[in-house]
Amino acid sequence: MEEAKGVVKHVVLGKFKEETTSDRIDELIKAYANLVTLIEPMKSFHWGKDVSIENLHQGFTHIFESTFESTEGVAEYVAHPAHVEFANLFLSHLDKVLIFDYKPTTLRC
Amino acid sequence: MEEAKGVVKHVVLGKFKEETTSDRIDELIKAYANLVTLIEPMKSFHWGKDVSIENLHQGFTHIFESTFESTEGVAEYVAHPAHVEFANLFLSHLDKVLIFDYKPTTLRC
Repeated sequence: MEEAKGVVKHVVLGKFKEETTSDRIDELIKAYANLVTLIEPMKSFHWGKDVSIENLHQGFTHIFESTFESTEGVAEYVAHPAHVEFANLFLSHLDKVLIFDYKPTTLRC
Repeated sequence: MEEAKGVVKHVVLGKFKEETTSDRIDELIKAYANLVTLIEPMKSFHWGKDVSIENLHQGFTHIFESTFESTEGVAEYVAHPAHVEFANLFLSHLDKVLIFDYKPTTLRC
């Protein structure tokens, strides 16, 4: 079993509210990406919109994935004032949210 | 905006049924990982269990992420007999499933 050493992926699925404009969504994504520069344990960030063809995305429109060096790093991020401020704003624009953290394993022997 | 050239991430969240044993789950994950060797457009695979602390994982227990070179590659994978056979078995062991495909974007300028 190969497990990336301590790395934790923090996956957020969101469905934006109808009234949240695409310009506002763009601003929120920029602010989310900017957390990498503000919160030391947050090592990287990427995001995307659903392009699935199986219709099993349960209404979620966007995904955001950030990477941390450890579960302690995620905890530090969650409690960090810059994250708390951002999360309060971000969540106010979401109808639905799902958060899943995991340590990626590439193979199982 | 940096978008990985055509790459598509195929994310599956699952909640296994109570009666599915951990040995059975291990077998299913091995079979899932093995699809990389059987289906050409499937380029990589990793998985993990939820370790989140925010209690927003909505009961999902496992995540599986595979990578494709294009949305056409995902469509080829979905229709591939090896995937169809595996998916029928896999889904029979799940209480819940969510599938989200996206083209990862790392920055937005």
